[in-house]
Parts: sequence; structure tokens; C-alpha cells
Amino acid sequence: MTATLQDKLERFREIDRTIKSYGEAIGVLHWDLRTGAPRKGMDSRSEAIGVLSAEQFRLETSSEMGELLARLNEPEALDTMAPVNRRLVEESAKAYARSSKIPPKLNQEFVVLTAQAESYWEEAKARNDYAGFRPYLEKIITLTRQMIELRGPGATPYDTLLDDYEPGMTTAQLDPLFNGLRERLVPLAARIADSPHQPATGFLRQSYAVSQQKAFSLHILREMGYNFDAGRLDESAHPFATGLSPGDVRITTRYLEDDVTSALFGTIHEGGHALYEQNIGTELAGTTLCDGTSMGIHESQSRFWENVIGRSRPFWRRHFGELQRRFPGQLDVPVEDFYRAINVVQPSLIRIEADELTYNLHVIIRYELEKQIFNDGATAAELPELWNAKYEEYLGIRPPSDREGVLQDVHWAGGAFGYFPSYALGNMYAAQIADTLEQRMPRLWSHVESGELLPIKDWLTEQVYRHGKLLNPAEIIRSVTGKPLDPQHLVGYLERKYADIYRL
Amino acid sequence: MTATLQDKLERFREIDRTIKSYGEAIGVLHWDLRTGAPRKGMDSRSEAIGVLSAEQFRLETSSEMGELLARLNEPEALDTMAPVNRRLVEESAKAYARSSKIPPKLNQEFVVLTAQAESYWEEAKARNDYAGFRPYLEKIITLTRQMIELRGPGATPYDTLLDDYEPGMTTAQLDPLFNGLRERLVPLAARIADSPHQPATGFLRQSYAVSQQKAFSLHILREMGYNFDAGRLDESAHPFATGLSPGDVRITTRYLEDDVTSALFGTIHEGGHALYEQNIGTELAGTTLCDGTSMGIHESQSRFWENVIGRSRPFWRRHFGELQRRFPGQLDVPVEDFYRAINVVQPSLIRIEADELTYNLHVIIRYELEKQIFNDGATAAELPELWNAKYEEYLGIRPPSDREGVLQDVHWAGGAFGYFPSYALGNMYAAQIADTLEQRMPRLWSHVESGELLPIKDWLTEQVYRHGKLLNPAEIIRSVTGKPLDPQHLVGYLERKYADIYRL
Repeated sequence: MTATLQDKLERFREIDRTIKSYGEAIGVLHWDLRTGAPRKGMDSRSEAIGVLSAEQFRLETSSEMGELLARLNEPEALDTMAPVNRRLVEESAKAYARSSKIPPKLNQEFVVLTAQAESYWEEAKARNDYAGFRPYLEKIITLTRQMIELRGPGATPYDTLLDDYEPGMTTAQLDPLFNGLRERLVPLAARIADSPHQPATGFLRQSYAVSQQKAFSLHILREMGYNFDAGRLDESAHPFATGLSPGDVRITTRYLEDDVTSALFGTIHEGGHALYEQNIGTELAGTTLCDGTSMGIHESQSRFWENVIGRSRPFWRRHFGELQRRFPGQLDVPVEDFYRAINVVQPSLIRIEADELTYNLHVIIRYELEKQIFNDGATAAELPELWNAKYEEYLGIRPPSDREGVLQDVHWAGGAFGYFPSYALGNMYAAQIADTLEQRMPRLWSHVESGELLPIKDWLTEQVYRHGKLLNPAEIIRSVTGKPLDPQHLVGYLERKYADIYRL
Repeated sequence: MTATLQDKLERFREIDRTIKSYGEAIGVLHWDLRTGAPRKGMDSRSEAIGVLSAEQFRLETSSEMGELLARLNEPEALDTMAPVNRRLVEESAKAYARSSKIPPKLNQEFVVLTAQAESYWEEAKARNDYAGFRPYLEKIITLTRQMIELRGPGATPYDTLLDDYEPGMTTAQLDPLFNGLRERLVPLAARIADSPHQPATGFLRQSYAVSQQKAFSLHILREMGYNFDAGRLDESAHPFATGLSPGDVRITTRYLEDDVTSALFGTIHEGGHALYEQNIGTELAGTTLCDGTSMGIHESQSRFWENVIGRSRPFWRRHFGELQRRFPGQLDVPVEDFYRAINVVQPSLIRIEADELTYNLHVIIRYELEKQIFNDGATAAELPELWNAKYEEYLGIRPPSDREGVLQDVHWAGGAFGYFPSYALGNMYAAQIADTLEQRMPRLWSHVESGELLPIKDWLTEQVYRHGKLLNPAEIIRSVTGKPLDPQHLVGYLERKYADIYRL
């Protein structure tokens, strides 16, 4: 590598590190806002976040960055680079190409509009007032269409949005994946509904002391190998995980007094996200590659730990005794009853309360609607009826109000079109990775039953976590499982699991 | 005001607001580091703080800022400005003049050196190893002298440092103030030591449940009028207050199981700092004037609440019953015994553990040594002996080790020469303000005894808090009390208080 090129690479790495530092600072400010910042400080804090975000955007799209990338992102330059530098240049060039096509003014307008819309959405949802929210949504859709146009659409306009959350994913790939899922899950859900062997769940809903829930959640996190020297567990209205650096990956949960498992599965879910970020390779620390490679792969890790491990029979054979001890007299049921209760399937209207099976149908509905908006010109005015019709068709239930329908999620208010598919992609990735893990680790379930979760964490670190963004999602799933993403792993997993539980 | 001038003023205000936003973000990151950030995230977080601090310094010293101030900080421009803008321009011009004279490289060297020195100091103190620490201190003194030279010394070199913490204060003013204090306090301390009426303090040292200490601290903060919608109380190894914005002023304390008053007085002290920052006028929010006007005035508010109010007899006549109820059987003494115990005077070696009287002597010793270093060429090698001799002279005790002597404070390791006088200035300001308050509010002590602290907070808001940095320290003390700072208020207050307690 020439000295000039070396200088340019070093300067590029320096700017990248600065961008990452801004990201870390913004992350702390968001974490703080959501875990107990005083109410009256919100406005000033939002302004500070705006200042840092603007500077971060400026660094990403500066003419200096453009010039550095023009020189570095050339085949003959890339060929001389170490893999980390090469990937960093390629990813930054992609981000630069995306961001630099959006005029800062339009970007700013979108940021302000979605911040207002998120805030207004909360009121509109509470009042069941879709008509009041619609003008915001219309404007967001309009600006999103403009941005797709400016960026140059992919095969379809919606492909541009998909790529933001799942790099490389297209509607051409996703349509058959989701169709494959839907065609098998809709009838499976119907057979489950008809089964006479419905689990009893009433005992999960008693008054469960929050202090004990908390202690048990901490215990399970430790068992999973979550490192408390590099993280902490707090409380927030909506649980989340945030990776500030590999040495500081925080999670939150929300304790419900009348529900013994809500906070626990929330903790395991966020703990899965956190294991990913705590175990990204140290050579990526301080770079923008030190992050999950996509929302879908990230979600696969939270879902793997929450559902594949956390809702498995061997897991509860190990841990149910401890849970019973913490709530004397409240969980006097056989472990099998508990296992069946936490795996109940029930078509419902609200995505975030959905079970492991029907959750995928909630997501597919949103995916199909988003495609209709951006590829087929569906309007905000038509959305409530389109939404309700799909719920009737796939889940057999019709939302009695928009609050329980099209108004339920914050994503569209935040302008995050293209995000929803990540959730179902996560389930598919998780099931496929789990099938490979079962082959590679024949004693997997006896490990789980004897409380040995660390070998699983170590295997995932080796296969997935350490790579950060060094591999893209398609590379990850192929390198781990030897083949591209295939929905039959999730279908097979769910069919086996529920055939057993519901005696289908 | 001309349109051009108006444009320049607006641009200046915009940059000032951005500087303030960086300050807020840095403040959150520091708060987080000190209240529970995971250990392994420290390095990455320090780097993020460094990035934000460098950008803040760049904004303060940019050529754009220099050009704006050159135009705005002119008499004919200043005359057309509203008071807030005028003061903001003057303060920024002062900060610009100070910072722009220091080459960024020297500034960076100083920042890195003091960060290393602070870290090394902790080890050196633990090992009682002044010889190991001395090279750092020598280098810090050398760089500080260089910076004084570059900035252009005041009447004496040390005056330049004093002005950083107490704008406008000079050694010519401070020498007679501190001499006046010392001449009266040294003999007063001696008479107290000779008194046969020493308070019994043993009962303060039992095992006091931390949960109850915490509840009582929160109770007292509420009584003081601390607004929990604009703040929160956390724990940290070293208590502090931090004003992120007037809507978010946080305090921390440290609970000692074997000491019922340590955390409480720490909380009241930091609560005093916080009342100041929560009540700065809204017209200053988001500007760099939204801050305490000096370290001395800031300290006067913490000391006023901690000592003048919090260690007064009427305060405990009101609150001792509640404290007793929280610790059944542990505080079965008359309130008068408790009052005397929390006001015990005892010459000691460690400043932060000193009583309200001898504390001032600890500070005067440091002031005199700092003058000797910067005005008279005293060397780091000579400091331990100079230190020990002064303790012998003023307090009658000689440190048996440097750990209990010259190594005890972090300030010099951090390069904060000129900071120490703030503590005794705070005591003097507090006593003088208290004398005025007593005149203006004849029922002051019956208010305190009946638990009505809000009129005091309101009066201080009107007199001190709301002004932020709009008035300088000399203007504040004159506008509140009608005359310049005079040590006789503190002397008189202490003489009256201890004559009563020790029956002198």
C-alpha cells in the first residue's frame, strides 16, 4: 500500500472512530432518557441529541469523507487492505452513497416530522383517532417515496427500504420465504385452535413479587453468560438492549406484578441481543463494524434465546424448581403444565403480545401492506381496511378498533418502513441456526437441561457474534448453516413443537 | 441594531447553544460513569468524552467564533444588546481570549497529563508514595506556569488561576480576607479544644440501616424544595451535583452504614448546589450563562444549606423526631445532644472530614501553598514539608504521612490550582448572605423550626439563583448584602455558634 493511501486510510479510520464515538454518546443519552431521566429535562436533552446526531450525519456525509472513499473504495486499493479495513470502506461507501443523496434539509425535515409523529401517535392511539394521525402518516409516506426516488429505487421501490434493515434482502427473495411460512402457519394455527388439548394458563396470572421476578431474571442472565462487568439491567416502559461498546451493553425490562413470565422472557430476549454485542470481536471495537450485521440477524439472537432455548422443555426442567422456590405456593403445578402454559398459541390482535407462532403472521401482514404502499400506491386512507381484512384472512379475527389495528405500532410514525420483516426473518434465521446447532452439538438439550448454557453462547460467538458487521446476513447464514435462508426450518420447528404440545 | 449585527448575534447565539448542548451531553456521560457504568466500558466511554470535549473546545476557539466576537464585543455593538446577549458576548469573549492563547497541542498535553496524573495519584496515595507522584506534579506545575505566561499573568501569576474559578478575585483581595479569617479562627479553634464541654458523639456511630438513611435524605430534599421532576438522587463513591439543564439537575450521595449523618449532610450539601441550578432563570436556559456564576458562589449555596440551615438547632428541633422514628432505639438522646454532636470541632488532618470551623484553615493552607508555588517559586520537592509545617502552625497537628498530608486531595493531580479558595469563599459568602437573610426575614428561624424552608429557597432564588452567570460574584454579593465580601460575617457566625455549644 502506498504511503498516500496509508495516510488516507488512517484518516478514514479516525473519522470512522469519531462517528462511532458520537454513536456511543447518543446511545448513552437515549438510554438515560428511557431509564429515568427527569421529565423536565426532556426538551433540552432532545436538543442535545439533535446536535450530536447532526454532527454525526455531517461526518458521514462530509466532502472529506466523500473524497477519502472515492480513493479508498477502488478495487486496486481494496485489494491491498486487511479484511476489516476493506469491509469498513465498503460499508462506509454504501452509507455515504445512501446519505449523500438525501439533501440535509430533507433529512432534517424527515427527522423533525417523525419525532413529532411519534409523539402525536401516542395520543392518537390513546384516543383511537386514526383520522387525526393520518396526515402525519401521509406526509411520512410522501417523504419516504421522495427519498427512495433520490436514492434510486432497487428492483421495486420497497426493496430500497428493506435493504436499510436487512442489507442485501429483496422482495424477490422475501416473497417466497414469507409465502412459504404463511402457507404452513395459517393452517397450523387453525389446527391448534381446534385442538381439545388447550393448556391452562390461569396460574401465570397471580400477584408475583417484583423483587423476586427481578432476582430470577438476573439469575437467568448470569446463566446465559451475560457479563455484568460489561452491562447492567434496568427498567423501562418498553424493554430494549443497547450496545454502547462491547464493554457496555445494557438491557432493560419491565416487571408486571400480575404476570410471572413477561419480564423474564423480555429479559431473555434482550439478553440475547446483548450477548451478540458483548461478544463482537475486539478487532472491531471502536469501528462502525462493531454492531449487529442486520436487524434480522440481531433479532435471530434474541428470538433464539427467548424462544428456542427459553421456551424449551429442557430449560424449564432445569430452572422451574428455582422459580417455584422464589414464589412459594404460587406455582404448585408440574413443570409440564408450566411448559405448556408458556407456549400457548392464541390468535390475537396485538403483535407484541403474540405467541411464537402467530407472531410471524402479524409481521407478514405488515410486510404485505408496506409493499402495497410503496409498490402499488396504497394510500394512508385505505390502510385501516386493508389491515383489518388481512387480520381476518390470516388470523381469523377482525380488530374492533384502529387502536387494536393499524394504530398499534410506533414503527410507521417513526418512518421505519422496512423494519417489520426483521422480526420474522429473525425467527427463520434462529430456527435454521438452531437446526445446525443441534447437529453440531448432539448433547445440546442435555446441556440445557443440566444448566450448561455457556457452550451455546461460545458456539454462537464463534459462528455469529464475533463477526459483527464483518459478514453480511447472507454470508452469516450460509457460513453457519451451509445454505441460504429457508423457511422450512422454522415451519418444521413450530410443527414439531406444537404437535407435541397440542397433541395434533 | 443593524441587520448584519443581528445576523452575527444570531449565529453567535446558535454556536453558544451548540456549545451548551455538548456540555450537557458530556455531563450525562460523566454522571453515567460515576453512578454505575459497567467497568469494561470505561475506555471506550473516555474516548467518546474526549471526542465531544475536543469538538466543544473547537467551537469555543474557532476562527468563526473569533470573528463574531471581534465584531460583537465592541462598545457600540454591546450598547444595543439586551442584557443577556451583552453578558453572553462578554463572557464568551473572555473565554475565547483565555482558550485561544493556549495552543491546542499544549491544551491536549495538559488534558492527557492530568488524566494520567489523577489515575496515578490514586495509586500513589494508597502507597503513600509522594516521590512517585512528584514527577507528575512537577510537570503539571511547569505546564501551568507556561499557560499562565501565554495567557498573560495578572497582578501576580497566581491571580490568573484564581480568576478561572472566581472571576474577578485577586490575591490582593483574598490575602486580607483569608488573613482576617485565620487570625480569628486559629485562636477560636484553640479555645474550643480547651473547653471542658466537649460534645459526646459516640451514638452517631452505630449500624444505621441504609434504606432508612436514604428515605430520610429524600424527605429532607423534598423539604428543601428540590424538584424531583427536574432531578434525581443516586449513589456514587464521591458525592456530586451536576446541572445538565435547569430541568435535569442530579445529585449523588454515599451511604455509610456506620454513620447516620454522613450521607445526610452530603445530600443537603449537594442539594444546595442543585437548588441553585434548578432555579436559574428560564431566559438563560440553553446558553452558557445557565450555570453558577463562580465556584465560590456555588459553594456558598451548598454550605448555606448544609451548615447554616442543616446544622442549626431550629432545623433539628423540627426534624430530629422524624430521624428518631426511623431508627427506633438508636437515637434516644435529647435533640440538644444531637445538635452538639453534629457540630463537634476537632482539628484533623483530612480536609473533607473537617468540621465547619477548621475546614477554613485547611483551605487557607492550600491557598498559601499555591501562592508559594506560582508566585514564589516553591518546588514540588518542598511541598510536603511546607504542608506539614503549616498544619502544625494553624491546626496544631502534624501529618504522620504524606497520604494524610500533601497527597490527600485530587485537585493538584487534576491541574486545578486556584480551585481550593472557593471552599472558604463559599463559607464567607454563605455567612454574609445568611446575615442579610436574617435581617430581611425576621421570622427565619421560626420558619426553619416549623419546617418552612420554601420561603428561604424562594428568597435565594430571587437574590442569587435566577441570575446564573448574568451577575459576577462581586455583583451578586453586593446586590444581595449591600457590600463587598467581608470575612467578619463568617467569623461572627462561628464565634457565636461555638461560644454557645462549647460554653466559651
